[in-house]
Amino acid sequence: MLERIRIVLIGTSHPGNIGGVARAMHNMGLADLALVAPRCEVITQESISRASGADHLLHSAQVLATIEDAVADCTLAVGASARSRTLPWPMLSPRELADRLPGECQAATARVALVFGREDSGLTNAELQRCHAHVHIPTNADFSSLNLAAAVQVLAYECRMAWLGQADTQPPAGPPADAAQPVPVADADDELASHADLERYFEHLERTLVAIDFHDPDKPRQLMARLRRLYLRARPEQMEMNILRGILSATEKATRPGHHRE
Amino acid sequence: MLERIRIVLIGTSHPGNIGGVARAMHNMGLADLALVAPRCEVITQESISRASGADHLLHSAQVLATIEDAVADCTLAVGASARSRTLPWPMLSPRELADRLPGECQAATARVALVFGREDSGLTNAELQRCHAHVHIPTNADFSSLNLAAAVQVLAYECRMAWLGQADTQPPAGPPADAAQPVPVADADDELASHADLERYFEHLERTLVAIDFHDPDKPRQLMARLRRLYLRARPEQMEMNILRGILSATEKATRPGHHRE
Repeated sequence: MLERIRIVLIGTSHPGNIGGVARAMHNMGLADLALVAPRCEVITQESISRASGADHLLHSAQVLATIEDAVADCTLAVGASARSRTLPWPMLSPRELADRLPGECQAATARVALVFGREDSGLTNAELQRCHAHVHIPTNADFSSLNLAAAVQVLAYECRMAWLGQADTQPPAGPPADAAQPVPVADADDELASHADLERYFEHLERTLVAIDFHDPDKPRQLMARLRRLYLRARPEQMEMNILRGILSATEKATRPGHHRE
Repeated sequence: MLERIRIVLIGTSHPGNIGGVARAMHNMGLADLALVAPRCEVITQESISRASGADHLLHSAQVLATIEDAVADCTLAVGASARSRTLPWPMLSPRELADRLPGECQAATARVALVFGREDSGLTNAELQRCHAHVHIPTNADFSSLNLAAAVQVLAYECRMAWLGQADTQPPAGPPADAAQPVPVADADDELASHADLERYFEHLERTLVAIDFHDPDKPRQLMARLRRLYLRARPEQMEMNILRGILSATEKATRPGHHRE
């Protein structure tokens, strides 16, 4: 399970924090670190010192340009968010996230991204809207900004607790019981769509909505954000994604000049 | 409850760690910090920088000579221990500790100490034997030494979760809370669509899919069943239902003969 969990840091400014994150991850048994557009050097004396023996995670970390690149193959992306946004999004506590992880990590193709923002400003709304859900670490209302490595530490600890809990409750032999099938995963008779599939769908959807004069990108009225929230919440399977894409293609064809029925 | 919990650091070597502990404590709503025989200056540029706005905890911290002084008034002292000792001691997981805290903190005279050892060597056997119980944060067996501030962060987080859980189970003052809040309800800023709204949507969807030649009711291929499952799973809100209905109407209009853009 733990090998299917990726920590994604976006726009980190301080090498010491990256080192602290590497140490927290390795302590809890996580190894997959992705750095999106870091605003500092990754391998420095400070990051190695704070990693305190976990600097192999700094060397193996992927450095990527965009959040898209970092979550493309993920079946669940959860963004760490300090505050509630104008457009509310499905919100989990760290414990609720932990409860869902064993189910989320079951499939061979499963990959979970936990996404953390900049030290000074967190994740942007656009980044948060790339995520299926947000996780909020409960904090003192008067002093809510956690250190980045501390935030990763808390969630990585919850990941490990979930993994240990799973080991505890695993039946000694035989097929695993599907007792705690996480919501809102469907009785998946099919694999979940990847994040890249979903992004391709949203692009196609937006083009189609423009073509049918429903959407004006100059006056977006949060339309795409609302549709993202709806479909991300539904966690479409690959088969469902194919149906939704097929509907868009049929719509485009039907609205093309000269199409009308012979 | 949180005001009855004291963090005790013994023989700390690095001012940055003391600052990190102060930040972690203040983030989680803890304020009582005791430093036993620190092996470094407490108020330094680095400790203040790492405290990141929680440096009042550094100024208000008690500095004491022995663990005895730090836990004298405590009704429960729990020592953080990385390893099992020759003499087994009552051992708690962080979660088990959290479960006990509300009860332990109930009395007016209650005071709980969470005791953390040196960065390099932890607590001595003599110090551990001053504690009622030990708490072990589960870690990767190959890399078990947590950063001091990270260890405090995990236990302080569990303290806060226990405190929040206690608030949750307090008898309700007003109308009863939504006991069985169904998942996956989003943090709805809007009412959920009614079942009748959904049925009207499915009728409209089917008509539209026929109009764009995507769906043949004579060869249904479970198409509508699959779409029902997807949208029902998402639990659409009224506002989202309006958007989805609007997209269908725009699609119908765009595919009507004679519509094409002038």
